[in-house]
Amino acid sequence: MAIIAFIGAGQMASALTFPAVENKNTVRLVGTFLDRDIIETARTTGFHPTLKRYLPSESIEYYQIENVVQALKEAEFVVCGVSSFGIDWFADNILNLIPENVPILSVTKGMIDMEDGTMITYPEYFESKLSKDKKLSINAIGGPCTSYELADKDNSTVVFCGKDINILRKFKNLFETSYYHISLSTDVRGVECAVALKNAYALGVSLSIGIAIGPDGNGIEHYNSQAALFGQSIKEMKYILNLIGGGEENIIYGAGDLYVTIFGGRTRKIGTLLGQGLSFEKAIEKLKGVTLESIVIATRTAKCIRRMSERGIIDLSDFPLLMHVDDIINNNAAVNIPWKDFETEKI
Amino acid sequence: MAIIAFIGAGQMASALTFPAVENKNTVRLVGTFLDRDIIETARTTGFHPTLKRYLPSESIEYYQIENVVQALKEAEFVVCGVSSFGIDWFADNILNLIPENVPILSVTKGMIDMEDGTMITYPEYFESKLSKDKKLSINAIGGPCTSYELADKDNSTVVFCGKDINILRKFKNLFETSYYHISLSTDVRGVECAVALKNAYALGVSLSIGIAIGPDGNGIEHYNSQAALFGQSIKEMKYILNLIGGGEENIIYGAGDLYVTIFGGRTRKIGTLLGQGLSFEKAIEKLKGVTLESIVIATRTAKCIRRMSERGIIDLSDFPLLMHVDDIINNNAAVNIPWKDFETEKI
Repeated sequence: MAIIAFIGAGQMASALTFPAVENKNTVRLVGTFLDRDIIETARTTGFHPTLKRYLPSESIEYYQIENVVQALKEAEFVVCGVSSFGIDWFADNILNLIPENVPILSVTKGMIDMEDGTMITYPEYFESKLSKDKKLSINAIGGPCTSYELADKDNSTVVFCGKDINILRKFKNLFETSYYHISLSTDVRGVECAVALKNAYALGVSLSIGIAIGPDGNGIEHYNSQAALFGQSIKEMKYILNLIGGGEENIIYGAGDLYVTIFGGRTRKIGTLLGQGLSFEKAIEKLKGVTLESIVIATRTAKCIRRMSERGIIDLSDFPLLMHVDDIINNNAAVNIPWKDFETEKI
Repeated sequence: MAIIAFIGAGQMASALTFPAVENKNTVRLVGTFLDRDIIETARTTGFHPTLKRYLPSESIEYYQIENVVQALKEAEFVVCGVSSFGIDWFADNILNLIPENVPILSVTKGMIDMEDGTMITYPEYFESKLSKDKKLSINAIGGPCTSYELADKDNSTVVFCGKDINILRKFKNLFETSYYHISLSTDVRGVECAVALKNAYALGVSLSIGIAIGPDGNGIEHYNSQAALFGQSIKEMKYILNLIGGGEENIIYGAGDLYVTIFGGRTRKIGTLLGQGLSFEKAIEKLKGVTLESIVIATRTAKCIRRMSERGIIDLSDFPLLMHVDDIINNNAAVNIPWKDFETEKI
């Protein structure tokens, strides 16, 4: 089919090589300066040390970052595979190497808060960093999909979003398989906002797991309280989606992504530790070495909501769970779920 | 506070005696003809054999059904505690015993499908069964709350719905505690529809659990596929909420309730067995003796959707998950998740 350059060899980008190779594309997997060992190990043994899987044995070429120009040569598509911590590096070092006719698909989820309290998507952020007059088609992936399960070819649904439906259809054609199911949307803000928010709220829901199992971890997990926080999360996410001008129907991606994040990963762990009574500092210490995008995103979103409140656009009391999560991680607050603030009267 | 007659001594009604007694109400717990043993055991030992908990030791009086008139005497409020299978019994035998000034709060969740493809709530159904000229205030409880966890005083959020906000506030006053958090809504259709639908969809999501663990049960549970079905459920539930004229914001109750049902109960079990490859008949056989409201509700909802489609009001292709669940349980279809039908293009 096509030559696709993957810039960044982290777990999600590397998991995407499975559907890409299955569809007879040629993958050029380029490690960032952080991925040097991954590329070296995968090239010599086929094994990806952080994804903990053997990558497809054919149709992948491995590149270290110093050979990125070579990797991009004749590449017809680019996958941006950096985490949210690598965004500025990608914008500063890679974007301007990509020809205008080569569309980009970013695996990085999330939004960035601007000084005035607005939030923009990564595609929008990338566009703002392009040289004057340069135009690129920058698209992104949202939806509930963890890298391990994608690599294991479990059924996963995602949404590719971008401005041009025809380019999105091309990407779908490159990646769609019997287990990787792709919807398309031109509502980039809606999709990205929904999937970004789930990080903050997955931490919020996980607090109740920690509260239930208690400081010694021997308590029984409860679901009423998790479900209560899940419902409250959906409510607050819907408000925020409206605020940033994203289609409210994107809540389905947010809900699915919230679900998989609560069960799938590191965010659950930090939320559980906090719920068990550890201070934020101690909880982070326990997870040393792990990058926690959820913390960054919760903090960013909360900051943005607070600024909008200062400007009189919104009422902070509509976001009690997000505010509490922010207080816990940024103001050393003890966990004390504001249950009564969730109650509403609808007449 | 008040004398409250509970008609039906099943798990949920009996769990509600905890917040009721904590608030110094006097509870009169009346068993139906199915609850004879429960009442006898609880009266003599304090233990509730199906809730598997000791009920509050004070302020509960136990009644067998033949003494229901006595139990209702001077009762200021009534809790209708029957399951959806007991609705007609309650309507035919109890409703007309209740004085007009005594408001009713029903724990039964769900909707009933009419011949023309419309669905009505239990409060609406009860009203339709009243003697001519009789007026009763019939209210209901929605939201994610399993009886065991309520009895254990875990934090739970619910919504009381009914036409009159002042009566809802009275009920809230009777039941609100530090762990039982009550929102109020006059959008009865919206609340009841959202919480009813989750039964069908919890079964749908659970299919993927069974598929992942496989026929021998030794496979690993996956979350991408569960999250995908969860998101699809939210999408279809939102459509149905709109169809029946319920406020779309009720999806937060539906989502929370879907979450707790997937993790909490019998519906997960039947969905998992079906996902593992058992026929519907065999799966039901394995769960012998258990009443499965989810099956009834999935069937009812699907029937209603099919009728609306025949009348040209809706497009069946908007409900691929519900239709598949219905095919499995009513047409002996094998499990084969229609992944491709979930994909959308939003331009």
